[in-house]
Amino acid sequence: MRNYIISIDLGGTNTRIMLLDNNLKILSRKCFSTKNFPARGKLIAEIAMLVRSLMAGSNISRSQILGLGIGVPGPVDYPKGKVHYLPNIAGWQDTPLKKILEKRIGVKVFVDNDVNLMALAEAKLGAAKGARNAICLTLGTGVGGGLVLDGSLFRGANFCAGEIGHMPISIDGPSCNCGGKGCLERYVGNAFVLREAKDKLRMKNITLEKLSELAEGGNKVALGIYNSFAEKIGIALAGVVNLLNPQVIVIGGGLSFAGGFIFRKIKDTIDNRAMPIQAKSVVVKKAILGKDAGLMGAALLVKENALRKNTKNKC
Amino acid sequence: MRNYIISIDLGGTNTRIMLLDNNLKILSRKCFSTKNFPARGKLIAEIAMLVRSLMAGSNISRSQILGLGIGVPGPVDYPKGKVHYLPNIAGWQDTPLKKILEKRIGVKVFVDNDVNLMALAEAKLGAAKGARNAICLTLGTGVGGGLVLDGSLFRGANFCAGEIGHMPISIDGPSCNCGGKGCLERYVGNAFVLREAKDKLRMKNITLEKLSELAEGGNKVALGIYNSFAEKIGIALAGVVNLLNPQVIVIGGGLSFAGGFIFRKIKDTIDNRAMPIQAKSVVVKKAILGKDAGLMGAALLVKENALRKNTKNKC
Repeated sequence: MRNYIISIDLGGTNTRIMLLDNNLKILSRKCFSTKNFPARGKLIAEIAMLVRSLMAGSNISRSQILGLGIGVPGPVDYPKGKVHYLPNIAGWQDTPLKKILEKRIGVKVFVDNDVNLMALAEAKLGAAKGARNAICLTLGTGVGGGLVLDGSLFRGANFCAGEIGHMPISIDGPSCNCGGKGCLERYVGNAFVLREAKDKLRMKNITLEKLSELAEGGNKVALGIYNSFAEKIGIALAGVVNLLNPQVIVIGGGLSFAGGFIFRKIKDTIDNRAMPIQAKSVVVKKAILGKDAGLMGAALLVKENALRKNTKNKC
Repeated sequence: MRNYIISIDLGGTNTRIMLLDNNLKILSRKCFSTKNFPARGKLIAEIAMLVRSLMAGSNISRSQILGLGIGVPGPVDYPKGKVHYLPNIAGWQDTPLKKILEKRIGVKVFVDNDVNLMALAEAKLGAAKGARNAICLTLGTGVGGGLVLDGSLFRGANFCAGEIGHMPISIDGPSCNCGGKGCLERYVGNAFVLREAKDKLRMKNITLEKLSELAEGGNKVALGIYNSFAEKIGIALAGVVNLLNPQVIVIGGGLSFAGGFIFRKIKDTIDNRAMPIQAKSVVVKKAILGKDAGLMGAALLVKENALRKNTKNKC
C-alpha cells in the first residue's frame, strides 16, 4: 500500500522536507539552508539524500510512497515538471526537476510554483477551507498570487497564472522588474515600502519590524505608509474581485502580520471600489498555515493526483 | 428523441430567438424590438408565444426539445436561473426567469449572462475555437467580459465573474457608474470615447462611425483618440494576462470594428506591459460570430448541460 507522501518546499533561504501519511499527518521533517548549496546539482543531491534519510528513519520503502510534491519559487511547466527559472536562485533555467528527482528517488514527482501550492493548501485546509473560489496573495520582496477556481488550482495556458503582484493599478506608474508599469508589486513589495518609510520617517536603517512597531504605537507617518500600502492592495484586489468573484481572499507573507487594521483597510477599499454583489460576498482573511502552507500544498497535490487517477480507473 | 434546442438573446434593443438542431445547425429564427414590450410580463409572454410559434412552424413538440438557453444583459444567479437586475431594461429585479419560462413553455431552461454566452460561443465555435483558456471582451456603452477557463465557462462564487470593464487601471481615476474609480469602462466605454472625440475634434455631432472614418482617413486627432483607447484596453488586459495566462483574447462589439490598428496597438501594449511568458503566448483576435454569438452560446449551454447529465449517468 502506498501510504506516505513526501513534500518539499525549495525556498530562496531554506529548503524544507516533510514526510506525511495519506491523511496529511506530519510524521517527520528536515530543513537546510538553501544558500549552502549554490550549485544546482549539489542542491538536488542534498534534497535526494535527505528524502532517503527521512524514509530510512521511518522504515519506509519507495513502494510505500504515493508521490513526492515539490514547490519552487518561480514559474514551472507543470505537466512536464520543468522549472523555467528561479528569480532568486541562480542556475535553474530550464531544469527538468520532475525527471531528475524521479530518476534519483524512484517515486512519482509533481513540481509546482510555491505560491500555487500555498493557495491550494489555504483553500483546502486553511483560511479558505470549504471555499470553491479562493485567491491567495503573498506579500514579501515579491508579491505573488495563486488561484483556486471552481475547486481546483488554476494554472492558465502556460501554468503562469496568478500574478496578482503584476496587475497594473496605474497607467503611468513606475517601471516594474517584470517589464510592466505601475504593477501592484512596485508599490507594496517590501523594498518599496521600506524605501518610502526611510524617506518619510527619515530613518536610514528602518526595518519592517520597526515600521510595524511604530504604526502600532500610533506613529502617524508609519500609519500613513501602511494605509497607503493597504489601499494599493485593495485597489488591485477590487479588480481581481470584479474579474473572478471569489468567496475568500487569503493574504500571507511578512507584511500581512503588520496588524488587523491593514486587513480592515483592504476590505474597506474593496467595498468602496469593487462592484456591489462581488464586494459584498468576499471575505479577506489572514493566511493560517504559515511556513507549512507550501509543504501542505505539495502533499495535497500528490494526494489529488492519486485520487484523480483512481477515479479515472473506476469510470 | 430530444433533438432540438431553442436559444434566445434578450437584448436591450432586440430580442432574438432561434431554433437549432442538436448539431447547432440553425433551423429558423424570430426577432422583435424589446422596446415594444416595456412591461416585463408582456415581454416574457411575447417570448413564449414566439417560441411556441417557432416550434409549431417546424412541427416540433415539447418532448423533442433538449432545452432552452437564454442570455440576458445583466447579472444572473445561474443555478437558480434568477435575473438579479438588468441595467438597461427596467423592472427585472429578482426575476425567476428559469422558473417562469419552464412553467410557460414546459421545457428545461438555462439562464445566463449574455457576455458569458458570447465567450462560450467564441471559445467553442468562434475566434478562440480549441483554446482551453480564452477571455472575451465586449466593447460598447458598457465594457463586458466572459472567461472560459480550463475549458469551461467560469462564473465565480456569485456567478458575476468576468467584469473586465471594471478593472481599475488608475489609482485616482474618474468615478465609474459601478461605484469604483478609474475602471477601464470609464475610459473606453462608447460614451466616454465620444465625449473625448467631441472635445478634441470640436465636432458636436460626432458618431463612432464618423470617428472611425476620420481615423481611417489619417486624421491625427482621431488616430490619437483610438491609440489612447487601445492603450487603455491593453493595460487592463496586461493585468488579465498576468493573472489568468490565457491563450486567446477575443474582442467584440462596436468599437472593435474600428480597424486592425486597434488590435495591433492592444497586442503591442500587452507585449510591452505583461510578463514575458504570458505575453508571448497570448493571441488577440476579433470576435467572428457577430450578433449570433449569444444565441450560439445559449444553445451550447443547453447542449453542454445535456452532455454532462449523460456522462453522470454513465459513471
